[in-house]
Amino acid sequence: MIQSQSVGIVTPQRVLFDEPLVLKSGSVLPSYELTFETYGELNADRSNAVLVCHALSGSHHVAGHYADDPGNIGWWDNLVGPGKPLDTREFFVIGVNNLGGCFGSTGPASINPATGRHWGAEFPFITVEDWVTTQARLADHLGIERFAAVVGGSLGGMQAISWALQYPDRVANVAAIASAPKLTAQNIAFNEVARQAILTDPDFHGGNYYQHGMVPVRGLRLARMIGHITYLSDDSLAEKFGRALRHGKHIYSYDIEFEIESYLRYQGDKFSRQFDANTYLLTTKALDYFDPAFEHGGNLPAAFARCKADFLVVSFSTDWRFAPERSREIVYALLHNRRNVSYAEIPSGAGHDAFLLDDAHYHAVLRSYFGRMKR
Amino acid sequence: MIQSQSVGIVTPQRVLFDEPLVLKSGSVLPSYELTFETYGELNADRSNAVLVCHALSGSHHVAGHYADDPGNIGWWDNLVGPGKPLDTREFFVIGVNNLGGCFGSTGPASINPATGRHWGAEFPFITVEDWVTTQARLADHLGIERFAAVVGGSLGGMQAISWALQYPDRVANVAAIASAPKLTAQNIAFNEVARQAILTDPDFHGGNYYQHGMVPVRGLRLARMIGHITYLSDDSLAEKFGRALRHGKHIYSYDIEFEIESYLRYQGDKFSRQFDANTYLLTTKALDYFDPAFEHGGNLPAAFARCKADFLVVSFSTDWRFAPERSREIVYALLHNRRNVSYAEIPSGAGHDAFLLDDAHYHAVLRSYFGRMKR
Repeated sequence: MIQSQSVGIVTPQRVLFDEPLVLKSGSVLPSYELTFETYGELNADRSNAVLVCHALSGSHHVAGHYADDPGNIGWWDNLVGPGKPLDTREFFVIGVNNLGGCFGSTGPASINPATGRHWGAEFPFITVEDWVTTQARLADHLGIERFAAVVGGSLGGMQAISWALQYPDRVANVAAIASAPKLTAQNIAFNEVARQAILTDPDFHGGNYYQHGMVPVRGLRLARMIGHITYLSDDSLAEKFGRALRHGKHIYSYDIEFEIESYLRYQGDKFSRQFDANTYLLTTKALDYFDPAFEHGGNLPAAFARCKADFLVVSFSTDWRFAPERSREIVYALLHNRRNVSYAEIPSGAGHDAFLLDDAHYHAVLRSYFGRMKR
Repeated sequence: MIQSQSVGIVTPQRVLFDEPLVLKSGSVLPSYELTFETYGELNADRSNAVLVCHALSGSHHVAGHYADDPGNIGWWDNLVGPGKPLDTREFFVIGVNNLGGCFGSTGPASINPATGRHWGAEFPFITVEDWVTTQARLADHLGIERFAAVVGGSLGGMQAISWALQYPDRVANVAAIASAPKLTAQNIAFNEVARQAILTDPDFHGGNYYQHGMVPVRGLRLARMIGHITYLSDDSLAEKFGRALRHGKHIYSYDIEFEIESYLRYQGDKFSRQFDANTYLLTTKALDYFDPAFEHGGNLPAAFARCKADFLVVSFSTDWRFAPERSREIVYALLHNRRNVSYAEIPSGAGHDAFLLDDAHYHAVLRSYFGRMKR
């Protein structure tokens, strides 16, 4: 049995990119900073770098913990570390807070140098493609010409896919986990309700709430509650909470009666204290926009014609947010182009959240792939 | 082929029940009014009455239209009328706005005689069982000792089920369509987010918004948007809207980009102008509370032991709000008690909303059942 460990204490780094970035929307960011972390060592021929892309609420803090905050453990700590499926004794792993984020990289809560005020509503729309562009600049900065792998779950998987399409020569392997080649109407609908919750919160002030010393807590809280329902399966909610009553009986009140209500309110409250509402809005739009087939008349295999990477595609049986069918579309598009693709549909009751969990079957698949993949 | 017609012009009626009603919560309503409509004629031996129970956003206006508002057609007009599956040449059909409602029956927007102000937050919590009790009083008022059938979809189906449990001798047949013996944790979760949207709307004023001349439009709008997503299947949203763009391209804005966004905002706006927020809250709680097995240690067959009615249970293949599995639980509980039960799972892409639609297979099942059922 492999003895796996934590990467231990980690320290985020920050880098300024002082050159204009033309975004997919046509807007231009004159400069920006990215916050990132690295784990393991870059080898001599710089061939062992792995980029981990984060999903909606993630960050650069993928593994380990901070010296001054030992409880703040990286969001994919069960995956990344010495002896773990993505083994930092072998790989140099990078996590980066996406542009537009709220955990250290330049985003709507940052000061716009042109005005001296928070960017707020003026911050430009960001796409998955833009994130990949900025990640490629970070790779340049770190002297990495080609990633051994780009890895991500959910929205992170979309970034990993986009890497293979935007920089086919700069990524050897893509691991797209619990992901999709585009959102469905139902996905967009959930995002839209979350956005409307934030946009119509009186404390949102058209996105410039920073100047008013306010946060649209109500909207962000609702957005997160909706999100949480879609991250979990019907079965996992039934198993975790069922119809369990806080007081053992009905109390005929709008206070907490069912334990599921307590869970949702707790998650919503916590998130609304930690996350920036404008980042939430921008990120849901990036999710909605992602659709590499769009510019190929809806033909996904045509969109994938450029890609050279080998792929690992993983889905989870009860994930109804990014259902296995969506992952199979990616697999079909790759097979159509005669690319190497491994596909695993992991039996799991945990819904979309399964990609974050330490499931033995799932982790064995990742360990096997990362251990044998081409460089 | 049967030539079916509208019931034509209908006129709602109103009746005052001036005797105290003890509710399941223990609260007492000193008096209340119910608004109802009838279609067809009660026969001489009063054996042909059918009660139609409404769901969350429904009303007493089941069929026909109003002389002064010809566009306002009853919500189940495709089902109820001369020659229709629930044939008003044969049956005397009754629709009633539930107590606590906002379409004419006493509810939170009514004036509390004790205070002279709107009931608002003081209106007591209502359960499915309470609705059935008031419907039985209405039946008394109309001289109906026993219904040929009680029929309902979704929350209406829960009322129909509860009729068989509360008044086993007063209902010959129950048609429970797209219903469930209790909500799942996921169902409660969606209700809770909708409630939180309303409860945290600054215009809600603790439920007493009437006195402030306000309506919590934002909250009600969000609640309805969430609801609509769950009424439709992933497939039907994909078919109706897919990723269709309003402007044919991405506009990088929080204005409407995808047609699904337009649909949700329209439905939310419309509903928030027509429906009372307190009624919405009360109704979602009634949904959450319904659980006839609760007082039998979770044993649904035990709860059904009292029932004497024959049952028709109908579910729809893509209904994920009240999935076919929930209907089968009802069927099993009935079979366990050796009751007569017919079950049809209708193949449909329309999700939960299918129970309101004019689907040939579905309507043929209803026509057949209503045409042959015991009296």
